[in-house]
Amino acid sequence: MDMDIATLSKGLDTIWVVLTAAMILLMEGGFALLEAGFVRQKNAVSIIMKVFVDITFGALIFYFFGFGLMHGKDAGGLIGTTGFMLSGDLSNIHLNISHDTFWLFQCAFVIAVISIVSGAVAERIHFRAYILYTIAMTGMIYPLAGHWVWSTGGWLQKLGMIDFAGSAVIHALGGFSALAAAIFIGPRIGKFTADGKSNIVPPSNLPLASVGAFILWFGWFGFNSGSTLSATNGSIGHIAVTTMLSASAGGAACILFTMFRYKKADPPMVINGSLAGLVGITAGCSFVSDGAAIFIGVLCGIAMVLATEILESKGVDDPVGAFAVHGISGSLGTLTVGLFAKPELTASIGKGYYGLLYGGGWNLLGIQALGLVVIGIWGFALTWIALKLIKLIMPVRVSKDEELIGLDVGIHGVPAYNQDHDFLDLETMKRENNR
Amino acid sequence: MDMDIATLSKGLDTIWVVLTAAMILLMEGGFALLEAGFVRQKNAVSIIMKVFVDITFGALIFYFFGFGLMHGKDAGGLIGTTGFMLSGDLSNIHLNISHDTFWLFQCAFVIAVISIVSGAVAERIHFRAYILYTIAMTGMIYPLAGHWVWSTGGWLQKLGMIDFAGSAVIHALGGFSALAAAIFIGPRIGKFTADGKSNIVPPSNLPLASVGAFILWFGWFGFNSGSTLSATNGSIGHIAVTTMLSASAGGAACILFTMFRYKKADPPMVINGSLAGLVGITAGCSFVSDGAAIFIGVLCGIAMVLATEILESKGVDDPVGAFAVHGISGSLGTLTVGLFAKPELTASIGKGYYGLLYGGGWNLLGIQALGLVVIGIWGFALTWIALKLIKLIMPVRVSKDEELIGLDVGIHGVPAYNQDHDFLDLETMKRENNR
Amino acid sequence: MDMDIATLSKGLDTIWVVLTAAMILLMEGGFALLEAGFVRQKNAVSIIMKVFVDITFGALIFYFFGFGLMHGKDAGGLIGTTGFMLSGDLSNIHLNISHDTFWLFQCAFVIAVISIVSGAVAERIHFRAYILYTIAMTGMIYPLAGHWVWSTGGWLQKLGMIDFAGSAVIHALGGFSALAAAIFIGPRIGKFTADGKSNIVPPSNLPLASVGAFILWFGWFGFNSGSTLSATNGSIGHIAVTTMLSASAGGAACILFTMFRYKKADPPMVINGSLAGLVGITAGCSFVSDGAAIFIGVLCGIAMVLATEILESKGVDDPVGAFAVHGISGSLGTLTVGLFAKPELTASIGKGYYGLLYGGGWNLLGIQALGLVVIGIWGFALTWIALKLIKLIMPVRVSKDEELIGLDVGIHGVPAYNQDHDFLDLETMKRENNR
Repeated sequence: MDMDIATLSKGLDTIWVVLTAAMILLMEGGFALLEAGFVRQKNAVSIIMKVFVDITFGALIFYFFGFGLMHGKDAGGLIGTTGFMLSGDLSNIHLNISHDTFWLFQCAFVIAVISIVSGAVAERIHFRAYILYTIAMTGMIYPLAGHWVWSTGGWLQKLGMIDFAGSAVIHALGGFSALAAAIFIGPRIGKFTADGKSNIVPPSNLPLASVGAFILWFGWFGFNSGSTLSATNGSIGHIAVTTMLSASAGGAACILFTMFRYKKADPPMVINGSLAGLVGITAGCSFVSDGAAIFIGVLCGIAMVLATEILESKGVDDPVGAFAVHGISGSLGTLTVGLFAKPELTASIGKGYYGLLYGGGWNLLGIQALGLVVIGIWGFALTWIALKLIKLIMPVRVSKDEELIGLDVGIHGVPAYNQDHDFLDLETMKRENNR
Repeated sequence: MDMDIATLSKGLDTIWVVLTAAMILLMEGGFALLEAGFVRQKNAVSIIMKVFVDITFGALIFYFFGFGLMHGKDAGGLIGTTGFMLSGDLSNIHLNISHDTFWLFQCAFVIAVISIVSGAVAERIHFRAYILYTIAMTGMIYPLAGHWVWSTGGWLQKLGMIDFAGSAVIHALGGFSALAAAIFIGPRIGKFTADGKSNIVPPSNLPLASVGAFILWFGWFGFNSGSTLSATNGSIGHIAVTTMLSASAGGAACILFTMFRYKKADPPMVINGSLAGLVGITAGCSFVSDGAAIFIGVLCGIAMVLATEILESKGVDDPVGAFAVHGISGSLGTLTVGLFAKPELTASIGKGYYGLLYGGGWNLLGIQALGLVVIGIWGFALTWIALKLIKLIMPVRVSKDEELIGLDVGIHGVPAYNQDHDFLDLETMKRENNR
Repeated sequence: MDMDIATLSKGLDTIWVVLTAAMILLMEGGFALLEAGFVRQKNAVSIIMKVFVDITFGALIFYFFGFGLMHGKDAGGLIGTTGFMLSGDLSNIHLNISHDTFWLFQCAFVIAVISIVSGAVAERIHFRAYILYTIAMTGMIYPLAGHWVWSTGGWLQKLGMIDFAGSAVIHALGGFSALAAAIFIGPRIGKFTADGKSNIVPPSNLPLASVGAFILWFGWFGFNSGSTLSATNGSIGHIAVTTMLSASAGGAACILFTMFRYKKADPPMVINGSLAGLVGITAGCSFVSDGAAIFIGVLCGIAMVLATEILESKGVDDPVGAFAVHGISGSLGTLTVGLFAKPELTASIGKGYYGLLYGGGWNLLGIQALGLVVIGIWGFALTWIALKLIKLIMPVRVSKDEELIGLDVGIHGVPAYNQDHDFLDLETMKRENNR
């Protein structure tokens, strides 16, 4: 073999990014299970069909539009202008991997963002409207926010905002978009009583939801460690460890906190607590210490429980806790970087990014807060506008009948689970489901 | 460390192949879920037991016989003659990885082939007969076809047939074998009425089937990108991208096409549509453009829907759509290479493999068609003969009683799902299942 | 890029270990599914919550205490004394990866150990007691045993015990601990009748259990091959192949053996048979031949079936077969190294480790047996003591009422599966579950 170091180095980085991208894409299976397990049985297929929309339409739209707007040559710090269909001048990207490989990794990210929203509108959004919203999110809303923070010319990037793997760009954006969508579309029929009390909607399949969480956890090692985009980045081990510790701390905190608060370790909260820890560490995984990672995990886990309660008390119906997990923990993760960013860990990105607790003053924290507010508002507002526009041309919410029958039989013509019939017709299904 | 480039290069290629092989082997979990979700509840364990046969007997038989016949020293372009139990002269294999590592990857492939067939005979084949058929497929049928196309001395390889990761060798072969088996064994009781109309057999568990598809999708990155067998192959990124785009296009096409055709996005069709896109791009993933990948995905997705309808109208009962997904898309994928193979992408394999649309004339397309016809007939005929021979010594199909009770309780003595009993005996199970 | 070989080599080893560690951590999803599928529906969430305890508390306790005790600077061959919270002098560790990366891999191991025990106490252990036991196991019981065998100064290591990826340290330890816990806590109500006969507790969800096994199988490639801790270790391919062959042999043996013994291929036994093959090869995967791997798989598969029967006849209730799979196969795997260790394969670890069948005499076999006895007794005794101590301060077993209602509703306040209600309250759940 006549092999040289440059070829080897490029091959090494390529397989690292392809393998971690595949892990992130597997997270769609995790989202599908998590959401199908958390919603009622009569809507378990419909939520998975939305995940299929996320991954299929999401990838195509990002190929045609989103990637260029996000990572193309910068115009004014605001928008990318090249790279649509992976063509045109992309000389602004300086990586040891091909543009193809980079696109795959970025594609896995955009699909994660839209999947966050799918949970918040579960059990009631109309399927066609969801397709249009997916196009808006993956074709414009996310790519622009991503450009600001992650593209070399982006204005938040230039200000010095830190968001290593996307607590802000992925999770806060997705979370605030999810909140807007949940409010816009309104609660599920019967979730809140006339006098404002809320009913418990029992998850249909907690084993599925749990394994969804384990798959997401697995994928997160790709998400965070893979974001180095280089296998020789010396932080990979540290990133993986902070990711593990924060997730564990989030889960453990929710076990103890719900035992104390509800007198029982609450399974949905424990599942979401681990995810909250993962979301929270995503911004700072490369830049904070192990101890800070544990702190962030605990903070995000407990905040997620409280946020879930508050949202419920306010009459907002977010069936899988998308805002509490991604919006709240994404925000906390973004902000805590401003506290805990450790000089020796941020040295590699230059300039002296010091967290408040390491004597860096309020500067970094201020930038993180600014970026977070901008991204949160952007996600919320653009989602609201997109749904408004969609509503002009078609219903955003299914009919009352379809909602009561369930979206599986009502919209997709097939139940998620069938145990009682060897052969079946649609009328029987509708009659049986409408109780 | 005294480390040299050759050792590093070998290590890099080794972990690339081992990791992608593990991903392909995980696809067995995907097949198990997909098939268990698509069949009726009373047969959900029996189909998974067949996947266990695929992976356990498949691996052992391939170790003792198949690998040697496929990748051993060539005799006459038709058959390999060394390498049984990984011993003997394998100097014809020129790779930067050990024979062990190469075997593991090839083993993952053969298990995928036999798993394709398992779906087509679901809910009615006898377990012992299936074991014998597995031995025939993994010990001879597939290894010979694989030798012709992929071994250095194989006659289709010498003609210049292109099948990068196996649209023909894996999927068309598996698909046509599945078709033969489905016809040979006949439809499930009650699937078709006396006057030729077909009844709908509702899938028992669509969330499981969906996550099966996501796991298969994940594994496919190993399947296609890993087929480079070298981490420094410059095409890895491109392969992963065409794989992603084609799968997305197949899924998106089926969402839109079934919305148009059936007035609803049909979940089983969407699941199979994504898989059709994956199957279709498997032959050309390294050699066609992104745009061609999208076209192939759309084509395979829609063809899969139509093929499913046609098969059903012809009275062929293929419970999970194995032929429509693997046979049809595998064929289209093999043929479209003859249209879309791009000179600059095939340069690395030499000789000027030009697709028709790039001015290569009918040559490559003709070879692809010839190879496809040979492999399709080979799979169909040998499967038919194998089942004929098996039928001489034992029943291929379960008894009517066992089929009505379901194979889980009828053959394996345990139901897939048990919700109502803390303790249970077999007679109760049979009584309850036989409705 | 100014890249040098040392950096490249370190990057290569790092991603190898991080990716395989992630695969091992995904095994927790496999354990969760396997156990949730094997237990009764009314306890399916409770067992998964225990897996969450394993991974969350396990990781944190191992970070604070376990890792240091296991891999810190040796004191007297018995215990590690540095490395708590990944700080202090760890110069005794000589690896091409960072301590961070090494910790992640070791953390994945400790979580696997405790997860083995969770199955044996399913459906009856109290949740709080389980948390305390997890702390004992991950903070002390396993780390000390691991130190003896795997730390450079460990006394069993110095004697020359071979346990490549942990048939003894992980599986025999976990298995004997599981046995102690199952005996200590006693059988489930109704499992054994007054006259000593045992009732069949039907698994609630065999498709989930099966996919759990496939995920475990996938993770095992990380477990065994990743244990090289170096991507340039020439044994990686061989390890993956022996792992594949032994697992296949274990599964195939159980298919044939249960067909012969029970007149049906028994699904739970086939699932556990593959796992038994995986457990058995874990000690010797790098050091035995392909043929020996197949022999070990067959041996472990059949021994697992017989051990399950014997345990049942003795009135020990191990709901998922934790002892039969991990304890028995782990023991056989440890011992068979003493028979089959092949001189040319053990050369890399020096000293001439010869198995009995290769003319090495009884020396290695004796050391393996000694180590196994020590580890088995250590796991059994310490688990018994730990549970005794826990019982002093809280009940180890749930109340009779909670057990009859099921731990999901009884302890965690939510059923695993909910199919019949759009909205639900706890009293209804309890009433419905208590049959």
